[in-house]
Amino acid sequence: MPMETHLAVDLFRGGILESRHRTSVAAWKDGRVVLALGDTRRPVFMRSSSKPFQALAFVLSGAADRFGATGEELAVVCASHGAEECHIAAVRSLLGKAGLPPSVLGCGTHPPACPRASAELARSGAGPEVLHNNCSGKHTGMVLTALHMGAPVETYLDPAHPLQVENRRNVALFAGMDPADIRICVDGCSAPNFGLPLENQAAAFARLATPDASIPPALAAAARRVVAAMMAHPRMVAWQGEGDAALMGAAPGKIVSKLGAEGVQGVGVPGRGIGIALKVEDGSARPRLPVTVALLRAAGILTDAEAAAVGPPAALPLRNHRGIEVGAMAFALPEEVRVLRNGYGGLEGGR
Amino acid sequence: MPMETHLAVDLFRGGILESRHRTSVAAWKDGRVVLALGDTRRPVFMRSSSKPFQALAFVLSGAADRFGATGEELAVVCASHGAEECHIAAVRSLLGKAGLPPSVLGCGTHPPACPRASAELARSGAGPEVLHNNCSGKHTGMVLTALHMGAPVETYLDPAHPLQVENRRNVALFAGMDPADIRICVDGCSAPNFGLPLENQAAAFARLATPDASIPPALAAAARRVVAAMMAHPRMVAWQGEGDAALMGAAPGKIVSKLGAEGVQGVGVPGRGIGIALKVEDGSARPRLPVTVALLRAAGILTDAEAAAVGPPAALPLRNHRGIEVGAMAFALPEEVRVLRNGYGGLEGGR
Repeated sequence: MPMETHLAVDLFRGGILESRHRTSVAAWKDGRVVLALGDTRRPVFMRSSSKPFQALAFVLSGAADRFGATGEELAVVCASHGAEECHIAAVRSLLGKAGLPPSVLGCGTHPPACPRASAELARSGAGPEVLHNNCSGKHTGMVLTALHMGAPVETYLDPAHPLQVENRRNVALFAGMDPADIRICVDGCSAPNFGLPLENQAAAFARLATPDASIPPALAAAARRVVAAMMAHPRMVAWQGEGDAALMGAAPGKIVSKLGAEGVQGVGVPGRGIGIALKVEDGSARPRLPVTVALLRAAGILTDAEAAAVGPPAALPLRNHRGIEVGAMAFALPEEVRVLRNGYGGLEGGR
Repeated sequence: MPMETHLAVDLFRGGILESRHRTSVAAWKDGRVVLALGDTRRPVFMRSSSKPFQALAFVLSGAADRFGATGEELAVVCASHGAEECHIAAVRSLLGKAGLPPSVLGCGTHPPACPRASAELARSGAGPEVLHNNCSGKHTGMVLTALHMGAPVETYLDPAHPLQVENRRNVALFAGMDPADIRICVDGCSAPNFGLPLENQAAAFARLATPDASIPPALAAAARRVVAAMMAHPRMVAWQGEGDAALMGAAPGKIVSKLGAEGVQGVGVPGRGIGIALKVEDGSARPRLPVTVALLRAAGILTDAEAAAVGPPAALPLRNHRGIEVGAMAFALPEEVRVLRNGYGGLEGGR
């Protein structure tokens, strides 16, 4: 971490600084890096922000068509879902179309990520199952793709499995990298995950939303279908009112976004050639949404009304257990963010 | 945040750095600051690490004796408890001795902090009540003290209430400060909280565990009683196996410790004149216990066996949902920590 040029996202309480989240941001526009705050060149694992890219093979291979995946089902393949009823139903439906039981999924179990769904499950007296795992859609997509490819299903999480090799190649293609330069780790759900610089992650999200000439036509078509599904069904990508569901839901058709664990966020802007990737140094989720919204506002992509509709992040400790306002989050985007606006020789109405 | 000399607590995944927690540490020994890593001189809110100091008035005023507080009950007054049965019973008992209903407590409600207690409550179908708030013991102590002082009970959370003025004075006395220099905010539980430099927080914990000549005898006696109760009943201060309960439980009678929200931890070592205070810049709880244990090991206070008995922090993402080891936490204490050892002209066995 050589340079200390990251965005400082500060939480104040009683008028003094209580906590600070150092946040790195890379933005890509018109084929180049236009913004680099903080540490944007060291490899960072995409975590769940890689899911839209991991879904490409599901479409490209023909598996999505063969098993008749609906838009909702394709969206849940790209999701870190909350295990709401609609998510469980979509994953169950997709597995059913392939005649597979949930036990083929290797993601492990955890309680529903959506607090309402988690409380409901607890009230029911039942424990979490593999379908409740926020990655169960992604794993279903992987299993169905492996099956359709004629590759072994039991070993689908092996980094050397043909599907995982293809996923790495797809991420590399959108990121403009050699697959060999992408670092591999084991994700929370046991799938291989991808470590690459934020600048390349920003490029990948720009090309996901607006495929350029570097993306072969069939893959570009797959990207458009993935992006369209996510934008049409934002709730399927997260859960009601939360994170990417709140963001994409507030500005239908304008942005595609996917968060990742440890404070990662990727955003692409269809038709604008813009991609943004951010990583909170300490892994906190708190700055993710406010910083993303502020960047999209500064870029002239979200209107004030759309930004307000996203709402405050649930995790922010700005009100206490009696609802008393006890703190505030503050950060200042640097002047350079204006490069994200169209025609940045002459700003759209200044700032 | 002028100096970048904090401890970097790093989380690795797939062989590369994933997240970093910058952690400031101050240690006090034999009447002076002996260790200052990071930003130890700006005011930091103690949050729940102030609870042992807020409990002093309960003892000193005579309220603890008048209402016949047991050791367990005094410990829960100092607690960020998990709302296990033992905690609810202790708070209920203490309120009952004063003939007061739970509705006098102004801490608000939240689900039990202990995941097991939270799941049990959810299964029961009941919602959280004020007794489940992790601060319900502290608030009970405050209400009983106000009652015993003959001060108004309804306004006990007002920073100008005689009890809150006394609490501020007590914190200042142990910290070696003027009360006017202590910043005040509204805590998560609506009680006034105290902002002071980590160096002074370390001094306060040193004097709490080993009162020196600056502490009046009656207050020193109250401190000894508070510390003895916490060390004798570690589970009452947190919950089974967690945080301060794990730490104090692993080394009975050796240390008194109390964490606070936003990555704060205070530790005192009875009979050694040592106090330690740390604050994670970003507010994360992840480094709190591992760094505290490493410091106490380096100081020669915890044995290897005791350090191992504390166990890993529950929140560390080192294993994934299938139990596969996916990461590691790493940090290197600087050479200077050896000043915490006794006779640091000649180290106990060197290093």
